[in-house]
Amino acid sequence: MSDVETLLLDRFERHVEELKQYCAIPSVSTDPAYKPEIERAARFVADRMTRAGLERVEILPTEGHPAVVAEWCHAPGAPTVLVYGHYDVQPPDPVELWTSPPFEPTIRDNRLYARGASDDKGPSLIPILVVEAFLESQGKLPVNLKFLFEGEEECGSAHLEALVTAQADRLAADVVLSADGALWRPDLPTVTVASRGMLAMELELHGAAKDLHSGRHGGSAPNPLPALARLLATLHDDAGEVAVAEFHDGITPPDPKLIDAIRASGFDVQGYFNAIGAELPRPLPSAEDLLVRQWLKPTLELNGITGGYGGPGTKTVIPAKAGAKLSCRLVAGQDPDRVFAAIEAHLRQHAPAGYRLEIRRHGPGSQAFALPADHPVLALTEGVLGEIYGQPPLRVAMGATIPIGTIFRRRLGIETVFFSFSTSDEDYHSPNEFFRLERFRDGMVGWARLLPRMAGQSPG
Amino acid sequence: MSDVETLLLDRFERHVEELKQYCAIPSVSTDPAYKPEIERAARFVADRMTRAGLERVEILPTEGHPAVVAEWCHAPGAPTVLVYGHYDVQPPDPVELWTSPPFEPTIRDNRLYARGASDDKGPSLIPILVVEAFLESQGKLPVNLKFLFEGEEECGSAHLEALVTAQADRLAADVVLSADGALWRPDLPTVTVASRGMLAMELELHGAAKDLHSGRHGGSAPNPLPALARLLATLHDDAGEVAVAEFHDGITPPDPKLIDAIRASGFDVQGYFNAIGAELPRPLPSAEDLLVRQWLKPTLELNGITGGYGGPGTKTVIPAKAGAKLSCRLVAGQDPDRVFAAIEAHLRQHAPAGYRLEIRRHGPGSQAFALPADHPVLALTEGVLGEIYGQPPLRVAMGATIPIGTIFRRRLGIETVFFSFSTSDEDYHSPNEFFRLERFRDGMVGWARLLPRMAGQSPG
Repeated sequence: MSDVETLLLDRFERHVEELKQYCAIPSVSTDPAYKPEIERAARFVADRMTRAGLERVEILPTEGHPAVVAEWCHAPGAPTVLVYGHYDVQPPDPVELWTSPPFEPTIRDNRLYARGASDDKGPSLIPILVVEAFLESQGKLPVNLKFLFEGEEECGSAHLEALVTAQADRLAADVVLSADGALWRPDLPTVTVASRGMLAMELELHGAAKDLHSGRHGGSAPNPLPALARLLATLHDDAGEVAVAEFHDGITPPDPKLIDAIRASGFDVQGYFNAIGAELPRPLPSAEDLLVRQWLKPTLELNGITGGYGGPGTKTVIPAKAGAKLSCRLVAGQDPDRVFAAIEAHLRQHAPAGYRLEIRRHGPGSQAFALPADHPVLALTEGVLGEIYGQPPLRVAMGATIPIGTIFRRRLGIETVFFSFSTSDEDYHSPNEFFRLERFRDGMVGWARLLPRMAGQSPG
Repeated sequence: MSDVETLLLDRFERHVEELKQYCAIPSVSTDPAYKPEIERAARFVADRMTRAGLERVEILPTEGHPAVVAEWCHAPGAPTVLVYGHYDVQPPDPVELWTSPPFEPTIRDNRLYARGASDDKGPSLIPILVVEAFLESQGKLPVNLKFLFEGEEECGSAHLEALVTAQADRLAADVVLSADGALWRPDLPTVTVASRGMLAMELELHGAAKDLHSGRHGGSAPNPLPALARLLATLHDDAGEVAVAEFHDGITPPDPKLIDAIRASGFDVQGYFNAIGAELPRPLPSAEDLLVRQWLKPTLELNGITGGYGGPGTKTVIPAKAGAKLSCRLVAGQDPDRVFAAIEAHLRQHAPAGYRLEIRRHGPGSQAFALPADHPVLALTEGVLGEIYGQPPLRVAMGATIPIGTIFRRRLGIETVFFSFSTSDEDYHSPNEFFRLERFRDGMVGWARLLPRMAGQSPG
């Protein structure tokens, strides 16, 4: 075990406490009410980077939430690595389903429970701690390191691309290591080489100008709730496939190697439905069918419907409006702008007469991402994970979106390799998000081993 | 003007202040969180009845919210009149749309704005004030009066029938005068002789056991939101008619005299849609078509849909469950139990595979109500209204439900005549509910004139 690893493991308890402090900040990015907490989290990150010994630490404003940048660039001849992470978190609701409050980090069963613990505060704190350990024990880093932590990952990274474009010189590097992402399964080491893109929007149907009594007006006044249900019901066919014209245009077939990986994964379909607590579909899909749907096919999901009374009991109201939030996961060949246009056209075409339809897009969205199979840093991460977990990791795709892959490729001309120690079962968009403390430890070991090996890589 | 009327009008300002105090109590019956306020409102009513000179004032518990009863029975040979009202109110949400807070009663433009001001605190306070004025100026009432004010009208009067059954002797009377109900239009005096029945329920569709990340799980996990939309979309056909088998069974044709009244009403269809702020349907329905739909046809309305994220921005979630609140207005010949069975069967038949469907009925519901056209007290109320408003009132039906008509007929063997000074445009199930102060004044005059005329009626 290297000096760096020893130092990190000696301080493990203290680092867990630091992570708890970090997770206590409710840095929810999608809701403007949390803006002061976003700023507090950015300062927490900047302060911690400074204490670790990073230089040129700066909180950079964007038109949305700020990003935090830092660097240590005193390894001439060695490659330059840009570390990506994010300090914002998902909303905690439904809060009543949390066992311990979402922003009161609590350890149970060797897991840290808190909103953001797994996505991405735990995994992204690790490289900062590893930098500190290198600088303390060796006085230097094996490679040049730059950091970019954004504050809008959980609401679509709307201003990241503009920031990266404006700061292209400052962020110039040979490769991105993303501390965001996740190991696919707790029982199997994996590396993620592809992820789906994203497009989010919402719609609202307006009937009367105000809420009306459903007894007085029922039968004569427009009710946007059934109108919305009927409109949303047109989005999929009876088999659950997206029924929007031109939605699937341009899709390219998936990489056959990923299909091979799916077949090799020994994925337990019945176990999957048991784990999420859903009924077993009849007939049960094959592992290949299910993972293709989860990784390699696009979706059009409803994420929320609101309208009328939702409290206890009854309220005999015809609401003035009803709304829905939608998001798509996109696959290779789909363009967020073209998909948005297709959905908008579908909604306008199927919108019922007598109602006003409003459609709002949330952010630019992002295309799907895929890493070249022969990328040398990918091989290095596979080596480190193989050592830690005792078996070579499987290359997998992920259904979720990390838009940075396409942004860094387009704006900095470099690839992104995912090296996160989150695990995808850690409920990071659900109540009771947690981060396994052994993954926190594994991550410190992993980063401490990976960085020296990258020094041997030729830059550029 | 009688002594009683003079006394009431002299004290008008004071009575407005009393009404404001009453309306400041947030006695929302449908939400258990307001239970202490319900009890406070019941005590307010009981205290005010006692101060007015009523006797045997009592707060009677039920399995839900209590009822308040009182009486003055010292007019031997005169008929006994049971006055009905309710002290509970609708929920105030959406609170943000109120100009002044719903439970801070505020006068603007000679209207009292507050939740419950029009439905039913203003109209039901009137007979108490009139009793006080009679007892003060004449030492007696012209008829025997009993009062029954319930606390569950806005959540379906679930325990009223049991209470009336248990208290049948105490409540025995010759006729019910309801201080609940409403004048149909501000510009035309009306008496209501029929109302639709009611049935309320909610349903929930459950998918996975917890909320899931729509990126990770989108495509492979069940999403109850589109499933709910598709299920709800089956409830109506393309023309908006209820598409539930057996829903319409047993419906009897409407009273031709009500159709005649609709034709005589000069109802302005275009004005109706302008007033509620909705787009004009194309083609525009006739006045007869519209009012038949509003008064004499049944509905199956959605009153609320909830599921997933409803806050600002985006949350990429697949919610564990989604729900909807439904209510029906029923017409003559429909039975709430049979209609519930029909809807439940429809929902179970159309429920998508892979989801768990829960259906909960809210209260027993109520059948439609119709008053015999030759009821003598109906003629008296028409006479009083004709004097106050300078033209004979039109007999109308109402789309909304007052279940008391059928309950009092079944349990006490007597008819219910509506004598309320609420007006149906007073937004009583919407934000900014108000009660016109001139109607408060008209109501005092109206009750002060009606009671002596009822003394001439033969009891029984």
